Amino acid sequence: MTRLLHDQGVTAPAGFRAGGVAAGIKSTGAPDMALVFNEGPDYAAAGVFTRNQVKAAPVLWSRQVLTTGRLRAVVLNSGGANACTGPDGFADTHATAEAVAAALSTWGTETGAVEVAVCSTGLIGDRLPMDKVLPGVEHLVQEMAGGLVGGEEAARAIMTTDTVPKQAALHHDQNWTVGAMAKGAGMMAPSLATMLVVITTDAVADAAMLDRALRAATAVTFDRLDIDGCCSTNDTVLLLASGASEITPSQADLDEAVRRVCDDLCVQLLADAEGGTKRVSITVTGAASDDDALCVARLVARDSLVKTALFGSDPNWGRVLAAVGMAPFTIDPDAIVVSFNGFAVFQAGAPVAGARSVDLSGADITVAVDLAAGAGTATVRTSDLSHGYVEENSAYSS
Amino acid sequence: MTRLLHDQGVTAPAGFRAGGVAAGIKSTGAPDMALVFNEGPDYAAAGVFTRNQVKAAPVLWSRQVLTTGRLRAVVLNSGGANACTGPDGFADTHATAEAVAAALSTWGTETGAVEVAVCSTGLIGDRLPMDKVLPGVEHLVQEMAGGLVGGEEAARAIMTTDTVPKQAALHHDQNWTVGAMAKGAGMMAPSLATMLVVITTDAVADAAMLDRALRAATAVTFDRLDIDGCCSTNDTVLLLASGASEITPSQADLDEAVRRVCDDLCVQLLADAEGGTKRVSITVTGAASDDDALCVARLVARDSLVKTALFGSDPNWGRVLAAVGMAPFTIDPDAIVVSFNGFAVFQAGAPVAGARSVDLSGADITVAVDLAAGAGTATVRTSDLSHGYVEENSAYSS
Repeated sequence: MTRLLHDQGVTAPAGFRAGGVAAGIKSTGAPDMALVFNEGPDYAAAGVFTRNQVKAAPVLWSRQVLTTGRLRAVVLNSGGANACTGPDGFADTHATAEAVAAALSTWGTETGAVEVAVCSTGLIGDRLPMDKVLPGVEHLVQEMAGGLVGGEEAARAIMTTDTVPKQAALHHDQNWTVGAMAKGAGMMAPSLATMLVVITTDAVADAAMLDRALRAATAVTFDRLDIDGCCSTNDTVLLLASGASEITPSQADLDEAVRRVCDDLCVQLLADAEGGTKRVSITVTGAASDDDALCVARLVARDSLVKTALFGSDPNWGRVLAAVGMAPFTIDPDAIVVSFNGFAVFQAGAPVAGARSVDLSGADITVAVDLAAGAGTATVRTSDLSHGYVEENSAYSS
Repeated sequence: MTRLLHDQGVTAPAGFRAGGVAAGIKSTGAPDMALVFNEGPDYAAAGVFTRNQVKAAPVLWSRQVLTTGRLRAVVLNSGGANACTGPDGFADTHATAEAVAAALSTWGTETGAVEVAVCSTGLIGDRLPMDKVLPGVEHLVQEMAGGLVGGEEAARAIMTTDTVPKQAALHHDQNWTVGAMAKGAGMMAPSLATMLVVITTDAVADAAMLDRALRAATAVTFDRLDIDGCCSTNDTVLLLASGASEITPSQADLDEAVRRVCDDLCVQLLADAEGGTKRVSITVTGAASDDDALCVARLVARDSLVKTALFGSDPNWGRVLAAVGMAPFTIDPDAIVVSFNGFAVFQAGAPVAGARSVDLSGADITVAVDLAAGAGTATVRTSDLSHGYVEENSAYSS
């Protein structure tokens, strides 16, 4: 039987080791560097990255090395995004990958920097303290060489404003496994959240198969998680396959397993959203196409007035309609049905009796919008706009 | 010499009367109905309305009657938007216009409902209490018949979450005048803010001339005031000309006067933005076109992470770059220059020394982004995202 567990992550599949250490990048002394290492025998990999045109140095690096469809390791740091840091910042990323390759080679696994992806998260615009990062790399590889399996340590070391580590592992009944870790709490948006996600599997799958599974999964999971409409410079989702199970799943089975793991991580990310007090699901049906449905769901999910009303448990459905009314294609306002938590509040062009008294006091809220124009549908997850969000984000860099 | 005053509004030009009364729509007993009446001899008028596809009944009505290019009166109410109220809500708007026409006719000015625009503001989705509205109309016309000039009373009666009435009057040195009143504090966005604005002039100008002046002015003023990216169902800006000065200005002079009055009202609206603690001006230069510049300025103005950082007086310029990076056209991140309050903080692809210590503690903040790609430029005004905004908008309808 296929099982999904939360107390295991990237080291659940055979052939992977990981670790997390406190390298001193964060002034708090909290863990801030992680390594995920693929022991093989396969090294196929795929990745998707932020659509933001302002891309951090580690995104530029990792995207480049992934053109080979092959990775031996991923090194990650919190405490600094290494974004908008110019050529010097890119050189820092390159030097980090070289240091990982050198340390792994010394340990006995001949590795090139081109086989090492780099992920960074934290404040945009500051150089990383390389006098902390490079010893951190040595430390990480020593920990792993000592036999550490360390999936949870890695998941903890990539946390920024996250309050809990996020892991998931799916054990397929055909004896192969997908594991993953994720970080991200704010700056979540359009195309991928500010998120670092590393997914591992011991299935046998080539880079093209991994790429297909990863793109299909992110399109309906991370791409539809929209905390604040802000798209980060550092978003990265990587999928590495060791082949250690010696089992080759069908593309459909791999797609499904990766999608389930990604979907589960989305639920964890949303539950830990910065300042969020509500987990909100916006479902649009009856659109002319799925793309139209997604567009309208995003409009509602990003509307500050809708989000503040939900923070106040206020069934202010007029704000939902006002958000829907900004659709860039023609809608028929009189045909729309809006529902909160399954209760229709607006239909046939007018409010439904009792619409103002729908109970939204719980932590989970569903908003449904039926456009009555076709069969297109999409769901976007978001959180409310709370005092906590304002508090957390008004004092981040200083 | 042309003078711009703030203690005069819609009754500053000759040929206009106005009034405001407490009709009992608001449960607080605050003034909630206003009338602006054009005594002529001309009745030319123009209007621009929300681009939201979900349009309130008064918007549908006023847009229709304005196809004649002629108005004798505008009746306005706060305390209810009369949006998403179906055919019955539209009938209420129609009945209100009929009541104004009947009362004015009784008073001696033969008027048809088709000469009466209607504006409403307040909560979306509730029917207006017509047993309060219709007596309110009688009361308003009696006040005016008694000789009341009442511009400020009208400006007060249209306030919702506004804390101060907003008026402006420009006395042109060629002896004609433009006066105006406005309301609006939140739900301000893309195309026009949630705003009701009535502008009057005693200049002689036909509907086409008024329409041209009004569209040109709103495009660079109200259209570029973006408090929270939320576009209302009720936005209305009307311009009425009495011709009472008997002076016909040039189109250019009228354009300039209307633009100055609208710009001044924008400053007043921004200063009273819901929960706002900062007045922020986002200027984009060096874009390939003015449209591109406006697009990027809006991306920055609507970014929740930028807005919370500004609330915290935090010069977190990385968030500005991350917002700019979502432009739907190609940008060159390394060529961009970002400045706060006139100090460059990012240029040549890297941070400038001292960028983290720029002082943003004052109430006025300028953010400048030079895309280094052309001569296009645009400025968008916005406010910060504060605890006050969350507070005010999380408990509106309940």
